[in-house]
Amino acid sequence: MTAAPMGWNSYDYYDTTVTEADVKRNADFMAAHLMPFGWKYVVIDIEWYAPGAGSRRSEYQYIPFSNLCMDAYARLLPDPERFPSSRGGAGFKPLADYIHGKGLLFGIHIMRGIPRQAAHAHAAVLGADADAAEIADPSSICRWNPHMYGVKNTPAGQKYYDSIAALYASWGVDFIKCDDMSYSDALPGKPGPVKHEIEMLSSALARCGREIVLSLSPGPALIEEAAFYERNAAMWRITGDFWDEWPLLKDMFGRCALWQRHVSRGSYPDADMLPLGKIGKGFGEERKTRFTETEQYTLMNLWCIFGSPLMLGADLPQLDPFTCGLLTNPAVLAMRDDALLPREVMRTEEMAVWEKRTWEGELKYFALFNLADEAQTITYRPAVSGECEAQFKELWQGAAVETADGAVCVTLPAHGSFAAEKI
Amino acid sequence: MTAAPMGWNSYDYYDTTVTEADVKRNADFMAAHLMPFGWKYVVIDIEWYAPGAGSRRSEYQYIPFSNLCMDAYARLLPDPERFPSSRGGAGFKPLADYIHGKGLLFGIHIMRGIPRQAAHAHAAVLGADADAAEIADPSSICRWNPHMYGVKNTPAGQKYYDSIAALYASWGVDFIKCDDMSYSDALPGKPGPVKHEIEMLSSALARCGREIVLSLSPGPALIEEAAFYERNAAMWRITGDFWDEWPLLKDMFGRCALWQRHVSRGSYPDADMLPLGKIGKGFGEERKTRFTETEQYTLMNLWCIFGSPLMLGADLPQLDPFTCGLLTNPAVLAMRDDALLPREVMRTEEMAVWEKRTWEGELKYFALFNLADEAQTITYRPAVSGECEAQFKELWQGAAVETADGAVCVTLPAHGSFAAEKI
Amino acid sequence: MTAAPMGWNSYDYYDTTVTEADVKRNADFMAAHLMPFGWKYVVIDIEWYAPGAGSRRSEYQYIPFSNLCMDAYARLLPDPERFPSSRGGAGFKPLADYIHGKGLLFGIHIMRGIPRQAAHAHAAVLGADADAAEIADPSSICRWNPHMYGVKNTPAGQKYYDSIAALYASWGVDFIKCDDMSYSDALPGKPGPVKHEIEMLSSALARCGREIVLSLSPGPALIEEAAFYERNAAMWRITGDFWDEWPLLKDMFGRCALWQRHVSRGSYPDADMLPLGKIGKGFGEERKTRFTETEQYTLMNLWCIFGSPLMLGADLPQLDPFTCGLLTNPAVLAMRDDALLPREVMRTEEMAVWEKRTWEGELKYFALFNLADEAQTITYRPAVSGECEAQFKELWQGAAVETADGAVCVTLPAHGSFAAEKI
Amino acid sequence: MTAAPMGWNSYDYYDTTVTEADVKRNADFMAAHLMPFGWKYVVIDIEWYAPGAGSRRSEYQYIPFSNLCMDAYARLLPDPERFPSSRGGAGFKPLADYIHGKGLLFGIHIMRGIPRQAAHAHAAVLGADADAAEIADPSSICRWNPHMYGVKNTPAGQKYYDSIAALYASWGVDFIKCDDMSYSDALPGKPGPVKHEIEMLSSALARCGREIVLSLSPGPALIEEAAFYERNAAMWRITGDFWDEWPLLKDMFGRCALWQRHVSRGSYPDADMLPLGKIGKGFGEERKTRFTETEQYTLMNLWCIFGSPLMLGADLPQLDPFTCGLLTNPAVLAMRDDALLPREVMRTEEMAVWEKRTWEGELKYFALFNLADEAQTITYRPAVSGECEAQFKELWQGAAVETADGAVCVTLPAHGSFAAEKI
Repeated sequence: MTAAPMGWNSYDYYDTTVTEADVKRNADFMAAHLMPFGWKYVVIDIEWYAPGAGSRRSEYQYIPFSNLCMDAYARLLPDPERFPSSRGGAGFKPLADYIHGKGLLFGIHIMRGIPRQAAHAHAAVLGADADAAEIADPSSICRWNPHMYGVKNTPAGQKYYDSIAALYASWGVDFIKCDDMSYSDALPGKPGPVKHEIEMLSSALARCGREIVLSLSPGPALIEEAAFYERNAAMWRITGDFWDEWPLLKDMFGRCALWQRHVSRGSYPDADMLPLGKIGKGFGEERKTRFTETEQYTLMNLWCIFGSPLMLGADLPQLDPFTCGLLTNPAVLAMRDDALLPREVMRTEEMAVWEKRTWEGELKYFALFNLADEAQTITYRPAVSGECEAQFKELWQGAAVETADGAVCVTLPAHGSFAAEKI
Repeated sequence: MTAAPMGWNSYDYYDTTVTEADVKRNADFMAAHLMPFGWKYVVIDIEWYAPGAGSRRSEYQYIPFSNLCMDAYARLLPDPERFPSSRGGAGFKPLADYIHGKGLLFGIHIMRGIPRQAAHAHAAVLGADADAAEIADPSSICRWNPHMYGVKNTPAGQKYYDSIAALYASWGVDFIKCDDMSYSDALPGKPGPVKHEIEMLSSALARCGREIVLSLSPGPALIEEAAFYERNAAMWRITGDFWDEWPLLKDMFGRCALWQRHVSRGSYPDADMLPLGKIGKGFGEERKTRFTETEQYTLMNLWCIFGSPLMLGADLPQLDPFTCGLLTNPAVLAMRDDALLPREVMRTEEMAVWEKRTWEGELKYFALFNLADEAQTITYRPAVSGECEAQFKELWQGAAVETADGAVCVTLPAHGSFAAEKI
Repeated sequence: MTAAPMGWNSYDYYDTTVTEADVKRNADFMAAHLMPFGWKYVVIDIEWYAPGAGSRRSEYQYIPFSNLCMDAYARLLPDPERFPSSRGGAGFKPLADYIHGKGLLFGIHIMRGIPRQAAHAHAAVLGADADAAEIADPSSICRWNPHMYGVKNTPAGQKYYDSIAALYASWGVDFIKCDDMSYSDALPGKPGPVKHEIEMLSSALARCGREIVLSLSPGPALIEEAAFYERNAAMWRITGDFWDEWPLLKDMFGRCALWQRHVSRGSYPDADMLPLGKIGKGFGEERKTRFTETEQYTLMNLWCIFGSPLMLGADLPQLDPFTCGLLTNPAVLAMRDDALLPREVMRTEEMAVWEKRTWEGELKYFALFNLADEAQTITYRPAVSGECEAQFKELWQGAAVETADGAVCVTLPAHGSFAAEKI
Repeated sequence: MTAAPMGWNSYDYYDTTVTEADVKRNADFMAAHLMPFGWKYVVIDIEWYAPGAGSRRSEYQYIPFSNLCMDAYARLLPDPERFPSSRGGAGFKPLADYIHGKGLLFGIHIMRGIPRQAAHAHAAVLGADADAAEIADPSSICRWNPHMYGVKNTPAGQKYYDSIAALYASWGVDFIKCDDMSYSDALPGKPGPVKHEIEMLSSALARCGREIVLSLSPGPALIEEAAFYERNAAMWRITGDFWDEWPLLKDMFGRCALWQRHVSRGSYPDADMLPLGKIGKGFGEERKTRFTETEQYTLMNLWCIFGSPLMLGADLPQLDPFTCGLLTNPAVLAMRDDALLPREVMRTEEMAVWEKRTWEGELKYFALFNLADEAQTITYRPAVSGECEAQFKELWQGAAVETADGAVCVTLPAHGSFAAEKI
């Protein structure tokens, strides 16, 4: 079975402050407890190149005009204070080696473009006959992060993307989450993907000599550009930032429905990270997820039957038994199989029904969701071909599902759900 | 093999003026010459209920405030002048019988809603305790046709849709093209599908006791509502009206790309009728299609590799040998197989490449399109798994395709195309 | 002094149900108590031609497909049940005579266009060689009222507008409020004025032989079309319907600011009717205005310093002494003088300051408004030229205003205001 | 008589390349030949602080990431290469003195915000406890010029605007044209004025101790913000850049109509500079204006009857006799009197009529415009009160205008116009 990537991302817990030691502790935990279930990417999110990141959090999430760590070719380097093993030009290689040594894969977050400081300093670009001031587009900025300029669509611009791809490949990077890419208002006209830079990065990665998964942020991606995202990336965000609030979770049902035809092998619409377990420390709001346990099952059922990537936001060393169980149920995770077709059968303000079938139409899974704020009983009669008596088992506990005349009848608490597999 | 519907529609040649005799002559021709190749629907388009339709063509396409033929329950009836066999309450039953007798299927066009004249006359609604004035929404009109009011989303409104479905079923109707449905500005807010009436008609047809294909017009359908169209209709227009002009044909490539993931068994995005052969008489512009022969091959290649319905606009009795050949090539028509997945591999302003593969990824067909206004040579290297030597044959003539190191190299005239099958 | 029109309108109290007796009682009261202060128009609002208007209020404000009173030329006539003096072809002439006899002026509300029933019945159009079906545009409707079709921009269409202008002039109509005119979504594109029908009505009135004030509804009128409204009408609505709710009143400050340069002799932006005194009966919500007394002063201060028309919504026979006083203060009403220029000096979420000056810049009036939900003290220093000691008196009570070093300092309750005149 | 400012601006001829010598030659000419007619401002447009400006014109109009001349407080200084008298900290003082010595006034162009290079260098801000990095908003940029960041709405931000106002006042600046202010897409949402920076600059100038006219660019200003512009600036652009092409001139008629109510003493909608005489050298297109002589009269008639500022784009030393005559006709320039009210009487695609009257309604001027591409004869009957025989004289030549029964009848060439004064 293949399915969308699974892993851990530092953002939901650490914001911009994650350190090498933090990453290692999370990797250790993943290798020991989660890897057997398919979890394998360890991803360092935004600002690893920014000394002092997080030190002025009441004013800024990203400190403007600060001095980023950068090599002679305008390529960002890890902050040696937070990532000591990167000293002496090693970059993320030692940390990637550590993670690979555990059998895991290593990922980093980057921002679209080239550092503004490089353009103002006329830094050199590796292999190009133009400097950073020539390839930076002074009118292409990110609205929410102050560090970068977009790169022009020129041969010298391509060289810059080639140079960072080569650097990351040399470090052993397996996964790149590139931000301000899939939905940006950097260019005139309506917001959307920054096509030329996505293509430049995508082709740089394709030629860098290492297999690197490309993940595009932020969302919402535009459905009318679905084919473009598919051609150029392995996953792309279909929403704005997702956090532990029921309205955001409820809203995700419509977004998954919109993208249901676009989940296929190697190309995955991304419902964003899982704000489960302990999160929020870097944001000054350390907490257990605000989702109830019922809502957490609902989240997992939706992400899995839809087939989204699963990138965990929790601080892993603090993972409690409940959350751990939520993330390591083989029967539930098997529902993610990308050889099956997800389909929203129906949806109202109060409920939703999803199925997953083979290409030939054979039912494999279904899930029932109570989106209302009160409990309700849902009767559902799955369409199965021919057979007198289709049998189902509930996915989380494995209990046989009672049916009467082909109907399943379950009572779900507010925001609750029910997922089952045909046996 | 199954695929999208194929048939003939009266609009492109007759506009609003088609008569029973015209329909029979077209059906006769279809049965004799086209039916063996899969063509089977004979569809009477707009205004069959309007006496005098077409008589004031310089002022109106649809004469406003004219007296439509209607029964006591606000259901439109064929104009007996143009459809003599409908007299005496027979409706389209005799004509449907004639067409069924040839082994063909029978379709009609209808407009969303209930006749305005019925609402103003407070006509009865079959089976409802409300009259036409109660179910008609006086603020829901079609911008381009003056005859109807939308129907309110009420039980009595559903009764009206039930009553017309029952009538059409009793006539033997097999196909309904309902207009002002899939893209309308009838309701406040942005244009789009009139959801409640689509659902009312769809459920009325599902319960009418006869299998009737539902085709929604006009376009462009909204991609973000793809799942809605699929749930409620068998086909839906993805463009405005398509005519015999190259810019419209070129434009269709992008539209097909947008909808490529939504072609599946029983549910087909519709690239609109084929303005081929003799067309335009009812519009006062009788002509042979303005498409060159080269463009006509391109049209067929796109419609077939994408998998659109094929509804022919030509007057069939006047069909010339070239056009007849265009419509009856078994190898080309086989490319429509809805068990295969169409995919636009790439597209620029100058060219496009499409493929069709099995679910498992095996290549079955490819097509190359020259969208430029000059000839060009295209080299294409299809991705085929494992094999040393993939073999192809050109679809229209059946000639073997020369390859060198896996590359196909063809020179295509302006607007030309090339389609091939893997053997 | 000249200023914008002042009068009474039946809508706010009677909705669609006003009768001849109601109108007379209101006219009697106006003549006896308000006329000396400038109030003079008595206006019958919507649906005077609709038998049974208001009888199905729980379902409809305007009953669709009902049979309107109409003459042989598609011109609407008063419902004889509610307006008995109109019988025998007299129309509103007897009622207008009654009102004129009191020294007052008479107005009616009409809807843009021609009755739908006339178009469907192919009614004649006076003086035209086309019937109603030829001049009605079947795609031009009002979204919120079911009775009319727009009139096409043709000579025969102009004849219809000429014919209704002639009829109203023969009745002695002095004021016409025409609805669905100044802001309509009848035509494709963005909502706005229906220009061709405004021009047709405007020119029909100009040639009808009687001076008739043209008032356009509904709002909001578009500021970029200000010159168009000015050329064609005496007043035009700058908001949607205004009712007795503070947020609507607060919102009016911005709208008046937007239009402040367009108040001039004979051409007045209209802040809508005054929902004061007893209102709401026809809507099933008979009540005293929900505005506090403080808010009512604020309303009057804004309408008067801006220079809006004043059309009273109250049922006059039930007018209480407070409201009566509010409407008959000569010093306040004098502030409406259209020879002075209104100007919003400043505005925040919490407060607003207006002034009124002569063309040469001499200050005549100022008003201070507390828009906050708590009391606040406002210090204001009006710009006056040269003089050592400008003197002011408060408008409502006439008391001298204390100043210190040219500053006025007043403490205003929540939603309160203060208006003063330079003496 | 007062009216909108008149002067010369370096942009249309010199683009970014103007030098001190150029400015002096233009000032000399103005003092000698134009000053007696009201021309008095000498304005240096964009990039006077940019060494090398114009040196890479085929790639850039404004060279990004170049090193601008700046003092220790992030305030831009004249490029000493082009403005030698500015050396040694003198700034524009010597040049302003020169210009003042001729009896003229001195103006400069600035961009909204603070230099990007200052923010990246953490430059000090005079009088503030925050540096440039703290007051610069990294997400607020100009789309078409690469040099500046917007300034945050904070006390320290105000200090920066105060500091530049103080510097300019110390130089003797009389006029500031600030760009990227009145219509910018710098902030999220729809384009419009950057309100907080306009207010900060406006209040800095009000407190700087010198009278400085504030002119806002670019256009089109938003009509719904008219009151805001009036409160904060003396003039503001109502169009994008205006050049010597008839469609732009024809388009200006609608823009002037839109703003006609907003021309008043001290506050002027600005129809942009006059691309007359010799222009275009800095753009690599040195030429005589492309406007025909007929069109140039039309331009002057419109700008003058409307009452726009007149800022000349020509290189003055090269001024030819025709253009000189165009700019120095006292009767025509008198039409600009801001005590009169301009009014567009009517406009079609083919023609326009404007009048200018006193506040009391007395006609003073009218102008007729042929907007068609062929000659036409226009008959116009101005509304004049009472008098038997109004007399007019043509403005340019002073000839008496023939009237018959109060009608003026003139034949105008394509794009031609006719302006007259009542005598």
